[in-house]
Amino acid sequence: MLPYLTVDWGNPSSPYAAGRRARHALDEARERVAIALGARPKEIVFTSGGTEALNLAIKGAAWAGKAHGNRIVIGAVEHHAVTEPAAYLERFGFEVATVAVDRYGRVDPDAVEAAMSEHTILVSIMLANNEMGTIEPVAEIARRAHARRGCLVLCDAVQGAAWLDIDVDELGVDMLTIGAHKFEGPKGVGALFLRSGTHILAQQHGGSQERYRRAGTENVAGIVAMATALDLSVRERPDTRAHVLRHRQRLSDGLLPLDGVELTGHPTDRLPNSLSILARGTDGSAVVTALDLAGIAVSVGSACTTGSDEVSHVLSAMGYPDDEARGALRLTVGRTTTDDDIDEALAVIPSTIQAVREGARAMAGELEVAAG
Amino acid sequence: MLPYLTVDWGNPSSPYAAGRRARHALDEARERVAIALGARPKEIVFTSGGTEALNLAIKGAAWAGKAHGNRIVIGAVEHHAVTEPAAYLERFGFEVATVAVDRYGRVDPDAVEAAMSEHTILVSIMLANNEMGTIEPVAEIARRAHARRGCLVLCDAVQGAAWLDIDVDELGVDMLTIGAHKFEGPKGVGALFLRSGTHILAQQHGGSQERYRRAGTENVAGIVAMATALDLSVRERPDTRAHVLRHRQRLSDGLLPLDGVELTGHPTDRLPNSLSILARGTDGSAVVTALDLAGIAVSVGSACTTGSDEVSHVLSAMGYPDDEARGALRLTVGRTTTDDDIDEALAVIPSTIQAVREGARAMAGELEVAAG
Repeated sequence: MLPYLTVDWGNPSSPYAAGRRARHALDEARERVAIALGARPKEIVFTSGGTEALNLAIKGAAWAGKAHGNRIVIGAVEHHAVTEPAAYLERFGFEVATVAVDRYGRVDPDAVEAAMSEHTILVSIMLANNEMGTIEPVAEIARRAHARRGCLVLCDAVQGAAWLDIDVDELGVDMLTIGAHKFEGPKGVGALFLRSGTHILAQQHGGSQERYRRAGTENVAGIVAMATALDLSVRERPDTRAHVLRHRQRLSDGLLPLDGVELTGHPTDRLPNSLSILARGTDGSAVVTALDLAGIAVSVGSACTTGSDEVSHVLSAMGYPDDEARGALRLTVGRTTTDDDIDEALAVIPSTIQAVREGARAMAGELEVAAG
Repeated sequence: MLPYLTVDWGNPSSPYAAGRRARHALDEARERVAIALGARPKEIVFTSGGTEALNLAIKGAAWAGKAHGNRIVIGAVEHHAVTEPAAYLERFGFEVATVAVDRYGRVDPDAVEAAMSEHTILVSIMLANNEMGTIEPVAEIARRAHARRGCLVLCDAVQGAAWLDIDVDELGVDMLTIGAHKFEGPKGVGALFLRSGTHILAQQHGGSQERYRRAGTENVAGIVAMATALDLSVRERPDTRAHVLRHRQRLSDGLLPLDGVELTGHPTDRLPNSLSILARGTDGSAVVTALDLAGIAVSVGSACTTGSDEVSHVLSAMGYPDDEARGALRLTVGRTTTDDDIDEALAVIPSTIQAVREGARAMAGELEVAAG
């Protein structure tokens, strides 16, 4: 991306040479992203990230489909970038049906079908969950949803794109979203796959960029970087996958046997890098803070809701009561994770969980004493 | 911005150290942008660029103000990132009043007042025009608009921010937008100043970023770069201004005396770097192409409408008939423009204009012959 931040600074819409070089880079990036998703270049709309791509897809489809219906069906463990645009649309007379998930966070295609009415214009199901990694049966859901004429299917692949091979035709979806920073691209750039012939209303208006589907001067450097990162991610996937599976296995072998620790999400149909657990009797945030001091970066749930006191809507939907869900930890390994990293994690995480748990017990005891 | 693309890759919403470093960078950038605009840090909302900032301001204000009124007043020479969001809102029952400009592209504050009704909820006037550089009397318009209780005033400062000192209190506006690439920052990042207490509805929904005013993982590197670029732009402004004024004067002295060439926009109340002209009897696009071959980058109008055959809505609003407006050229000088650059431009532009004009005449003659 560096040339496009320094020497090739042109605006792709400018008519002169610097602009044409930027336009060429943009065209090439569009082709590479399209190839990675099994799509055609003109089906790719560049956005400022996964969130914008999802907002565009959901609101764009809703407003375009308004004459045909007002019902939107989403899974109960979708990211807030799906649930919040849907909730916003409720202000305008759209209705949102949320389909329950099982204990593993999976949406049942039968349940999607049951939630649909003749007014359904959009079904949105994620490829894989960001908090616990469960992979959803998107292709089957898309097939069922398309039985209703005029219903569009959106797949939020923001979390999944880094780890799963994507072919928009195999998935059978009309729209699919990605965000670059999830596969080691920069923040602030993403894309929407919009199948040819799929009509949605643009949501950001102004210039004629992106064939009038998304106005605004294109983030050329970011887009080029996203295309390269996606390309690399796809090409290196077999190796990276083997690498993260091995490291996750070690992590899993070291942590799941611990007392009061259990896996959340599906045991096998999940992203290869993700190990989400519950450590009963602990407060996940306290564990995160303690591990951070030890140089180990884990999180409780989605970074997008950090700071809020609410328990993850994902774990709630999976049937975990609040007090259990508070003990959630989201551990991920990556391309650069080493054996030493895992050794270190396994040397620290069990005792940290134990210490936080004992602290919580002691505090509960003190409160009892105080109350007594 | 480089550290935030390489080592400090954290998500500002992540709870661990890498996230906190990114959060710190974001906070610092917010403070710097706020200082540059005379605002407070919490009044700055980071966006993916000027277009998004304008869409957020216009749609956000319209939807929040719907209970109070439905009328939006804009100037006739506003950028498409203002006119198009406004046009989109017309679908939903909002009405848009467009205020005429004079020959120089200036909006008369009296005319804004006359265009307002008791239903007016938003007045949007740009700080300076992107095509011909005319500076608008924003402070005076804001004062008049605020006479109507509940009416918000938006100033599109995307073009002006590179060249004019901005103080949101002196301007007296409720909202103001900037886009980084206009002041040598990267593409894909911008900001909305949203005065404390001003209520608008968010337009991009998802996570809790930007205090729920704009969801989506923050483009940390881009935001840091924007803050630095704006900072530099403000600090170096006296020197840069003198530099571009001198070069523009030379360009102006060399071009305006040419036969059939005239200045467009205001002769004095204009951005210091901008020289927009009309070369009668020419097709501006042909001049642009010929100059590009000679290594000189000029444009006809806004890059955001390149490729469309329409004549600039700005020149139309200023009263130029289509056949004259087709001869428009937008020339700008910058911080890095040298005397040699101007020498070269003056050696090439006059003869290019003449050649294009003769070509057009010859073609018209041939057409006459063919028709005869």
